Amino acid sequence: MHSVKILSTVAETKEIIKQIKNEGRTIGFVPTMGFFHEGHLELMRRSIKECGETFVSIFVNPIQFGPNEDLSKYPRDLSRDSAMAEKTGVKYIFHPQAAEMYPEGFQTSVKAGALAEDFCGALRPGHFDGVCTVVAKLFNIITPDLAYFGMKDYQQLAVIEKMTEDLNMSVKIVKCETVREKDGLAMSSRNSYLTAGEREIAPAIKENIEFARNAVIEMAAKPGGTLLEKLIEGRKLDLIRRGFKSVDYFKIADAKTLKEIPDLDGLRRCSTIFIAAAAVLGKTRLIDNSVFDIKKIKGPRRNYQ
Amino acid sequence: MHSVKILSTVAETKEIIKQIKNEGRTIGFVPTMGFFHEGHLELMRRSIKECGETFVSIFVNPIQFGPNEDLSKYPRDLSRDSAMAEKTGVKYIFHPQAAEMYPEGFQTSVKAGALAEDFCGALRPGHFDGVCTVVAKLFNIITPDLAYFGMKDYQQLAVIEKMTEDLNMSVKIVKCETVREKDGLAMSSRNSYLTAGEREIAPAIKENIEFARNAVIEMAAKPGGTLLEKLIEGRKLDLIRRGFKSVDYFKIADAKTLKEIPDLDGLRRCSTIFIAAAAVLGKTRLIDNSVFDIKKIKGPRRNYQ
Repeated sequence: MHSVKILSTVAETKEIIKQIKNEGRTIGFVPTMGFFHEGHLELMRRSIKECGETFVSIFVNPIQFGPNEDLSKYPRDLSRDSAMAEKTGVKYIFHPQAAEMYPEGFQTSVKAGALAEDFCGALRPGHFDGVCTVVAKLFNIITPDLAYFGMKDYQQLAVIEKMTEDLNMSVKIVKCETVREKDGLAMSSRNSYLTAGEREIAPAIKENIEFARNAVIEMAAKPGGTLLEKLIEGRKLDLIRRGFKSVDYFKIADAKTLKEIPDLDGLRRCSTIFIAAAAVLGKTRLIDNSVFDIKKIKGPRRNYQ
Repeated sequence: MHSVKILSTVAETKEIIKQIKNEGRTIGFVPTMGFFHEGHLELMRRSIKECGETFVSIFVNPIQFGPNEDLSKYPRDLSRDSAMAEKTGVKYIFHPQAAEMYPEGFQTSVKAGALAEDFCGALRPGHFDGVCTVVAKLFNIITPDLAYFGMKDYQQLAVIEKMTEDLNMSVKIVKCETVREKDGLAMSSRNSYLTAGEREIAPAIKENIEFARNAVIEMAAKPGGTLLEKLIEGRKLDLIRRGFKSVDYFKIADAKTLKEIPDLDGLRRCSTIFIAAAAVLGKTRLIDNSVFDIKKIKGPRRNYQ
């Protein structure tokens, strides 16, 4: 059985990439901040299936964290992660130190545009610039043919895909479905912060998004309908009622532009809908979303008020 | 005799690049705004000599021009340019329209850092962000092994080289000496704006930089010496006296950091010096500079006051 190779320098990684390219093999890439869960492993499995060689990066990127965010306490466990990655068949992990990525004198950045303005971008100033900068760096180091991202961080995915398009990068971004726990909670390394009690409450975020999704599909299909504000207000209240400390946002938007949909007319003009929420449970900020084509959806619908 | 191929789309250009890479040939790249002079041709000749295939881009990049700058009147002549490039042996010119580079919805940019703050960056807000953004795009399209830039735009060169380093791009930036007219004027497409009378005055910018260079070398070598401010003030006055309308800047800086050197102690601590000037002659803004290692310079010195 092969063992996974941990690469800590850009130079060594570029050297290995060069050899693989010379052999004419395609490169798949899974950028992560580590502390793997099934969601990460699914991205790796898909890359291994589709590409000649798969690189995973583990880097808790300091420049995408705000001053009062969880950079220092973000969970890290390299030996656990490398064992998990190895089991899926990954051979290379790029795991640089911060000084390797941001040496003294570092000063150039990539600035995200309109897609980064609302949702998490509005609450975490500079976050998506930090994400774009590190991902541009990683893409230049790994030069992947395909790069795999989870839909849980949908705004991130949209911003990164736009960056590759705007800056004419040759990598193709592959969107992968959110992997969930049995009770529906979206997998996230940050779930490890939750107490047992909070963990029981946590699926409420997914349930309220589901509720709003069903309501929106029904509203779009028939004349009249509840006001969007009323629907959203109800979801926020439900989260608070069930034990969330606060709701950063609960929004219904156009999945292409990430612009909020103001009313039912706007909803009916839209084809792909993005419903997303961010809410604080104890000391943990959770996010989740649903992206769906409003015209193609069929299936069971719930009642809503 | 081969003829030069004008490529106007990103897709077609990437396709050709792919073939060349598959053949294992290296790619040299000369990004330009067109209206070629001997300076551009020197960059092309050097690339042709050093690389398997050379690509020249001609693109007057709108996002690096300020609202009151010369975007619309910037000189353009594609048929003259392609004939000149062809004579040097260039086979491919990438010549996109603005809509190909900045389609509707374009929103991601590259932001330059500290090296872009002073000199032209201070007078042209956003200029170097526009330069970095277009050069990052061009590098991603052409994927050159080597890219050739002239020392006349030294700050641009430093900012671009820093970008490639910070964002882990694999291209190597090749610095090429400024090509000058017989009377010392640095070649520039913007020299075409000058009237015959202005053209006679124009070399004063180079002469004053030379004067300051000699003075600085002498000052560094012996104790005491004229104050740097007095030296600079004298150069600015000379430019005005000889017919320049205004002086945007005349500065002596550390060539590595592009930070102005405040005094003689600072000068003596510095190894590579950057003296640069920007001044307006009639309606034309001219720039020029000299970069030199203060400890290695020998040769004739002029007197100064």
